[in-house]
Amino acid sequence: MGEGHYEVIEGGSIITPKGFFAGGVHCGLKKTDRHDIGIIRCEVPAVAAAVYTTNAFQAAPLKVTRESLQDGRLQAVVVNSGNANACTGQQGEADAYEMRAQAARHLGVAEQDVAVASTGVIGELLKMDCVSAGIEALPARLGSTPQSAEDFSQAILTTDLVKKEICVTVDVNGKKVVIAGAAKGSGMIHPNMATMLAFMTTDAVIEQPALQVLMRQATDSTFNMITVDGDTSTNDILIAMASGMASNDVLNEDHPDWEAFAAGFTYVCQVLAQAIARDGEGATKLVEVSVNGAVSDLSARAIAKTVVGSSLVKSAVFGADANWGRIIAAVGRAGEPVNPESVDIRLGDISVLEASRPVIFDEDAALVYLKGDTVRIVVDLHHGEGKATAWGCDLTYDYVRINAAYRT
Amino acid sequence: MGEGHYEVIEGGSIITPKGFFAGGVHCGLKKTDRHDIGIIRCEVPAVAAAVYTTNAFQAAPLKVTRESLQDGRLQAVVVNSGNANACTGQQGEADAYEMRAQAARHLGVAEQDVAVASTGVIGELLKMDCVSAGIEALPARLGSTPQSAEDFSQAILTTDLVKKEICVTVDVNGKKVVIAGAAKGSGMIHPNMATMLAFMTTDAVIEQPALQVLMRQATDSTFNMITVDGDTSTNDILIAMASGMASNDVLNEDHPDWEAFAAGFTYVCQVLAQAIARDGEGATKLVEVSVNGAVSDLSARAIAKTVVGSSLVKSAVFGADANWGRIIAAVGRAGEPVNPESVDIRLGDISVLEASRPVIFDEDAALVYLKGDTVRIVVDLHHGEGKATAWGCDLTYDYVRINAAYRT
Repeated sequence: MGEGHYEVIEGGSIITPKGFFAGGVHCGLKKTDRHDIGIIRCEVPAVAAAVYTTNAFQAAPLKVTRESLQDGRLQAVVVNSGNANACTGQQGEADAYEMRAQAARHLGVAEQDVAVASTGVIGELLKMDCVSAGIEALPARLGSTPQSAEDFSQAILTTDLVKKEICVTVDVNGKKVVIAGAAKGSGMIHPNMATMLAFMTTDAVIEQPALQVLMRQATDSTFNMITVDGDTSTNDILIAMASGMASNDVLNEDHPDWEAFAAGFTYVCQVLAQAIARDGEGATKLVEVSVNGAVSDLSARAIAKTVVGSSLVKSAVFGADANWGRIIAAVGRAGEPVNPESVDIRLGDISVLEASRPVIFDEDAALVYLKGDTVRIVVDLHHGEGKATAWGCDLTYDYVRINAAYRT
Repeated sequence: MGEGHYEVIEGGSIITPKGFFAGGVHCGLKKTDRHDIGIIRCEVPAVAAAVYTTNAFQAAPLKVTRESLQDGRLQAVVVNSGNANACTGQQGEADAYEMRAQAARHLGVAEQDVAVASTGVIGELLKMDCVSAGIEALPARLGSTPQSAEDFSQAILTTDLVKKEICVTVDVNGKKVVIAGAAKGSGMIHPNMATMLAFMTTDAVIEQPALQVLMRQATDSTFNMITVDGDTSTNDILIAMASGMASNDVLNEDHPDWEAFAAGFTYVCQVLAQAIARDGEGATKLVEVSVNGAVSDLSARAIAKTVVGSSLVKSAVFGADANWGRIIAAVGRAGEPVNPESVDIRLGDISVLEASRPVIFDEDAALVYLKGDTVRIVVDLHHGEGKATAWGCDLTYDYVRINAAYRT
């Protein structure tokens, strides 16, 4: 992870990198009075990149954003919550284009420099009068104060309980470069080569292809390693914008500080991904599953995601039940090479299985550990050099409650 | 399915085919006083076949049963609930062999003609004193009365609420052939080329290779198409025994009544599979997902299983929420070819999506339908000729309750 290369800026947010402004308001898409539309704007056209959901039914805003990103530049992102604008046909597509056009007009930027993102219920048309009112109100409220960032962060949430933000700084040839991110998650969370709604800003000067490659690499080990419920949304997107206002020598893979920048960038992704997992619908805790000794990193990833996604493992963690049998059963059904005789499992520091044999452990200590707000499961396969970590959450009564009546 | 080829025998069970006896007693493996060990015995060595879990960590009894089945014959099956004898190392293996030896001795049959199966908690050693007492008590209690079958059916259950039994008869060259089955399911149910504990008996005269092939085919469209929680157990096994006492001409694929026999056999598998899905841990209803118009049957199977396994779809069904957005999102993440513009979805007879566009439907009628004890979801992709049906259940508070404290 390259810790030490970057430093966390306490209280930092997506408007901390030079050149960014943000804001959010309530326009009427949510039934409550919480913010439901927000904008990030850059002073200048920013170098930008994105990764998208692999779901076959991609929502209309993703199509529009793909178009905007064809030249690798963006100057603004407009995002609404409360309605996903997915499976909404021609009208949904027209609405997404209209959102982009209106945002561009009111912000005074080029249409093809605006990205659009939506999250919420699938299959209902956007209330465009609400959206228009929100877009009209927003430009006057964009700012670079903590409150502006707070307004934006609130505007992208749905069933999320807490906002997810992180900001770090990295030295790049003596210049302070800032990297920040904001995300929303909660349900339908099982990113696959893409992620939830997540927005990253940086003031780094960086080549667009380098940003795109870095984003994909960072995503593979962070956002793509979380799961709340195994369901991949139609709307997942991660967008990063680089204002270039930090005046560093242009970053690419050959820059001497590339590794430091990449470590900081990846750390921002990881913090957001963990925050999404911890705030999964109904979750009471973060579950981290590390797999070591797999035949490859890819194999370790598959196993870690299988374990962290197992409903039985998730229920046991909720109940603080040290039921490692479910962990090994999940390892065994991942379809990856294992040696059935050589598996170790630890819950935190408590060893429960060694060389595939049960260990007598202190059940009381295990109970105390499993009642904490973060549960770490370590699986060592002793079968190779591959390793990976995945994040998820417990499965609770509240997950069922929330999802048994989401629309109603 | 070839309906009409077979006839259901009301009140029939695994002892209805000629030559079979069964029984079950409580030996102390379960904390309650419910039966926890049972035996099926055939008068003669029966032609037999089995399919096993694909989980990499196969429980000890599966290894022993594989050995017994090397010659394609079995005369008895001994099965316990309350303890899975999985991940129990050398001692677990020795215990499974000991179970087989004791059963053989007390039943007066050859060791290599006895299969062993176990279900329950993973990672704890069997209390062999209990097992021995049960095996000693059982031979005197084996019978061919409805009560004997009832005792056996109860003995294989864990968190199941109801026993799963079915019996049909088929005409094979003028002889009445009977096929019956009993199964247990409930949690850790996501069979993959194998199934839960399920036992089938028939008095057909049948060639062993034909029985094995038929079993695999039938399993693929029945047991392998159900999921309760996506977790594949370490102990899944389906065993079939054919006593040959119906005196029909020997069955194989060339027999003129093969199709009728295969239809009856598959129907028995399907009824047991549906019963397992309906009685999934915490379930309040059976969910059936049929996918038509996929590029192939295999593709349709993958999509149907993804939809029926989606936690979000399962929660919505529990809440009687006609949230078809979750259905299409699940279709879209199955990784199979679809045309995003041509999908129809129906809930029972209620159309909610046509050509991927939302249909205005009667929400009250949908609510009434979704509150029923069986919910049928039909997805038509209009993208090919492939079709498949999968079965599962809703995700409820009780699933979480049961699994948050299974061991304790």
